[in-house]
Amino acid sequence: MSRVDKKLEEIEETIRNEVPAGISISDVTFEGPELVIYTRDPKQFAQDGDLVRRLASKLRKRITVRPDPDVLMRPDDAREQIQSVIPEEAGVTDLDFHADTGEVVIEAEKPGLVIGRHGATMREITQEVGWTPEVVRTPPIESSTVQNVRNFLKQEREERRDILERIGRQIHREEMSDDQWVRITTLGCCREVGRAAFIVSTPETRVLVDCGDKPGAEGEVPYLQVPEALGAGASSLDAVVLTHAHLDHSALIPLLFKYGYDGPIYTTEPTRDLMGLLTLDYLDVAAKEGRTPPYDSEMVREAIKHTIPIEYGDVTDISPDIKLTLHNAGHILGSSIAHFHIGDGLYNVAFSGDIHYEDTRLFNGAVNEFPRVETLVLESTYGGRNDYQTDQEDSEEKLKEVINDTYEKGGKILIPAFAVGRSQEIMLVLEEAMRKGDIPEMPVHLDGMIWEATAIHTTYPEYLRDDLRDRIFHEDENPFLAEQFNHIDGGEEERQEVADDDPAIILSTSGMVTGGPIMSWLEHLGGDPDSKLVFVGYQAQGTLGRRIQNGWDEIPVGNGTGRSNTMKMRMDVETVDGFSGHADRQGLENFVKTMNPRPEKVLCVHGDESSVQDLSSALYHEYNMRTFAPKNLETFRFI
Amino acid sequence: MSRVDKKLEEIEETIRNEVPAGISISDVTFEGPELVIYTRDPKQFAQDGDLVRRLASKLRKRITVRPDPDVLMRPDDAREQIQSVIPEEAGVTDLDFHADTGEVVIEAEKPGLVIGRHGATMREITQEVGWTPEVVRTPPIESSTVQNVRNFLKQEREERRDILERIGRQIHREEMSDDQWVRITTLGCCREVGRAAFIVSTPETRVLVDCGDKPGAEGEVPYLQVPEALGAGASSLDAVVLTHAHLDHSALIPLLFKYGYDGPIYTTEPTRDLMGLLTLDYLDVAAKEGRTPPYDSEMVREAIKHTIPIEYGDVTDISPDIKLTLHNAGHILGSSIAHFHIGDGLYNVAFSGDIHYEDTRLFNGAVNEFPRVETLVLESTYGGRNDYQTDQEDSEEKLKEVINDTYEKGGKILIPAFAVGRSQEIMLVLEEAMRKGDIPEMPVHLDGMIWEATAIHTTYPEYLRDDLRDRIFHEDENPFLAEQFNHIDGGEEERQEVADDDPAIILSTSGMVTGGPIMSWLEHLGGDPDSKLVFVGYQAQGTLGRRIQNGWDEIPVGNGTGRSNTMKMRMDVETVDGFSGHADRQGLENFVKTMNPRPEKVLCVHGDESSVQDLSSALYHEYNMRTFAPKNLETFRFI
Repeated sequence: MSRVDKKLEEIEETIRNEVPAGISISDVTFEGPELVIYTRDPKQFAQDGDLVRRLASKLRKRITVRPDPDVLMRPDDAREQIQSVIPEEAGVTDLDFHADTGEVVIEAEKPGLVIGRHGATMREITQEVGWTPEVVRTPPIESSTVQNVRNFLKQEREERRDILERIGRQIHREEMSDDQWVRITTLGCCREVGRAAFIVSTPETRVLVDCGDKPGAEGEVPYLQVPEALGAGASSLDAVVLTHAHLDHSALIPLLFKYGYDGPIYTTEPTRDLMGLLTLDYLDVAAKEGRTPPYDSEMVREAIKHTIPIEYGDVTDISPDIKLTLHNAGHILGSSIAHFHIGDGLYNVAFSGDIHYEDTRLFNGAVNEFPRVETLVLESTYGGRNDYQTDQEDSEEKLKEVINDTYEKGGKILIPAFAVGRSQEIMLVLEEAMRKGDIPEMPVHLDGMIWEATAIHTTYPEYLRDDLRDRIFHEDENPFLAEQFNHIDGGEEERQEVADDDPAIILSTSGMVTGGPIMSWLEHLGGDPDSKLVFVGYQAQGTLGRRIQNGWDEIPVGNGTGRSNTMKMRMDVETVDGFSGHADRQGLENFVKTMNPRPEKVLCVHGDESSVQDLSSALYHEYNMRTFAPKNLETFRFI
Repeated sequence: MSRVDKKLEEIEETIRNEVPAGISISDVTFEGPELVIYTRDPKQFAQDGDLVRRLASKLRKRITVRPDPDVLMRPDDAREQIQSVIPEEAGVTDLDFHADTGEVVIEAEKPGLVIGRHGATMREITQEVGWTPEVVRTPPIESSTVQNVRNFLKQEREERRDILERIGRQIHREEMSDDQWVRITTLGCCREVGRAAFIVSTPETRVLVDCGDKPGAEGEVPYLQVPEALGAGASSLDAVVLTHAHLDHSALIPLLFKYGYDGPIYTTEPTRDLMGLLTLDYLDVAAKEGRTPPYDSEMVREAIKHTIPIEYGDVTDISPDIKLTLHNAGHILGSSIAHFHIGDGLYNVAFSGDIHYEDTRLFNGAVNEFPRVETLVLESTYGGRNDYQTDQEDSEEKLKEVINDTYEKGGKILIPAFAVGRSQEIMLVLEEAMRKGDIPEMPVHLDGMIWEATAIHTTYPEYLRDDLRDRIFHEDENPFLAEQFNHIDGGEEERQEVADDDPAIILSTSGMVTGGPIMSWLEHLGGDPDSKLVFVGYQAQGTLGRRIQNGWDEIPVGNGTGRSNTMKMRMDVETVDGFSGHADRQGLENFVKTMNPRPEKVLCVHGDESSVQDLSSALYHEYNMRTFAPKNLETFRFI
């Protein structure tokens, strides 16, 4: 009998001692980080509302209870009963029964009403029908991404369960080494912005944190070939953690599966969906630009199939000696700070991912309270000594001025923006400004994947800022549904119409002008001196956005592939900072200064060379911490 | 056609253009780092004394010329002719013909006379008989190690040639990466003395430098299991470089072959033989102490078979982008500083190994002139702020005093010493002191492997200090042949006799009192208050030697396995420093201060925590270099 089976036997014994007599336990298994308990008495199990919580706390495991398949009520009967339990206002749009696990997936417009106070309605469902409910939200704006992901996971349910079972056994394997150390190896993202990739390693475990590309330098990928990474064999990685879906953190996650990786990706549910959206687009863009994409869409599906979504604050075992907790990072939808608790009290490391410390319109500010943190790996995008940004309030004023000016001249406002994050932030600003009459009502055209990304945002309102979430819950106040927002889905023809038409605002990808429909908009509007190009986000070195920002006025034209021609930029260029998804220098310092507990060591990464050096030096002098500005391919040992 | 074959074809073309018409080239191959040219006209080839040098300089390769097998003179005829060419005083003791390579190995008491001025006699031999001579020294003191190694290599000649050919093709493979970086990973020996092991890596190449054990802590071995080392597969290492034969640098070299390593070990010829001696003894000691040795003697033979000996100063290609040069380190016989020239001018790293900067009686001081060095990895054994040692002259005076005092009391002088290095240094002191009448003539008993190690020293006088080498060349002055030296080869009985007999000096292994015959001598003499235990070398933390030095007076007795009893030490304990094979603090500083060129960065390793910190901080403040005191399992990137 393997150690894992022995452990399961012990756990089963503990459970039997804990549950009231008369509740049978037919099986206990691991599925990913969760412990799954099968019972022939699901209804009785559900009666004791506190039982699962007690078991979870005793076993220090996340627990799912499932009915034994042969005690399940027939789906047709169950469907009727479930619908009678759930209040009509919940807006159930789909019920999907899975006999293999006894789960019923309930898709509803208002999932909260399906769950009930402290889960009361869910428990009632189980008591009535035996099936275990799983609740998901019906996207208020139709999202093909969300739908595709859900359909795909439904279709792959069986294989996914095998994968989860295998991962579960891996996570709960016996520790093999008496040795103790904690290391971080940098595979990218050091003294540069892009190709985020780090390895956290102990004698037992190796975890890859992020695996991104480098915008504007597609050849510079993380150093995956070194023995610390996949050079030692793809199966030597235990887990991958993805902090958020931006391509400089996620683009090469699917590539891992092409290289033979077959383990879990831990991230939030919205990050999973956004990763699907953005990586598929990444493949599209590469193909359009005549580059050979490093992997195909099949690998994106592998990545989604291997994703284990976790919620903010949930402590999750990801290996025998590492527990992962994700915390809100305030940067984009689902963005996380990844906190690793290593070796039962030995050491704690937090990776900031990309953070925004203050609240924005979209998100609550980044969490900086942790049970313990000895080392912080901190993004430094705006870590330079002069990287102070305008307050968002002032920025909004400036943006409105720019819009009003341009409107008066009869020009158009073209805003390159990341589909994910900045676009929605700007949408909220524009919606309010028009509602309050600060700027004239005019169409706001959303091009590229912005519409789709917005739909994903409204699917996961729990991940949005408190008051925004509450507004979305009251359906009539969902600002993303405002009528001035128009989804550009008619291609070049529609763009031409918009360009020929009255003043309007256009938000278009890519955010750093490295491809996508923004290239087409520049062609349409670049020659118009009355129109305005407005940068609202960080432009990385090597991108066309950065060059234009620096005064470059020759724009490649020709829509994609054959960019042999250039055109002269005549439109005005303006940068309105303050909308960045990144904390500025002050925000980064505040994040660290108020961090509780204060870390002993800080590794400054994800910034230009001078930014990481400046921030590292400032944190050292002001807060007397040991700080580092690592290079790529270094390994730091902490214990 | 592979790239290597293509390269060989180009080289053959170059050679054909360079050699005079009428000299045929029948084949060109790589054997390890050397280029081997086969010719049907070996005699003509040898006539032009400068031809090989010209080719070597043009091709930037080490070159060996061999006769095509089918033009070889019959060995019996060749033997006679060779003997007529070599002067009788050379003292030829063996001629060994190898038809497969056309080589004749000539063993002689005076190899210099076989070689002739600038190789004239060697060339004459080839001109006469066609065979290529290879010259080795007949050990002046019979050495079973040297004999065994030579016999073994003779026996394995064919397999060895296959190995060398494979290695040769590996070394000369095409470079695969456009990337550039240079890293050092620490696998041991950081903030501790013992388990030396480092990895030098570039995108092309990974080289392991040393692989030792930790005296007094046998469980603490280098971190070979991590992916940076063998965790990525044994074949991912390109080469192993061994700085010297002491077990804290060499003990686990054979283990690499058990783990599947199948590549070259670069080191000096005496280090190869000493490694054989010491690792076999290491296995013996482990077995005697009831520990399971980590490998068996077959693996020692594998290590010897895979060794490619190189001489001080020879620049050797060990991979497509790394050239290795060994330089005298002044520490023990054959000890080297390993200098890596990386990427054709990109970067240079030197590993000091263990060094002694001043001349000693045995060795010239460590070399510290290099064409270029950006980073120095520096031993710090005596790097602590107070680690100043007595001048050797004063130390010798003190040793003589101690000996005279003890002699007068009728006691015996027991000196624990490393078999290799310190023993021979002390032997030279004692021989001179007796010859000059500074101490009374009395027997000097050599126990453990000291005798055998001394024999190896006399086999390689080229590696000894200039004037000592010259004395040995004049056979009557070989100080190691002085008659007072007695090899203890009669076991316990002889030891009992010596213990019961008149005053004498005993040098015995192990040097740190961690096992070996010294344990037996302590049992014999430990209770005698008139006798004296004299430490002349470094005692590492955790060793019994260090404990005794610190005043511990309970000695485990019982000869090896069942050490349940202890005895009370009554013999005096004295430490006479200044004989160490290690530079003291001043020597380390002088080594760095006068180093030419001065390195930009120094990694202080191979010392107790306080020693590396002290040295690192002192070098930083005094010479304004970037200095580090790495931990094990860190990776530093330089380019």
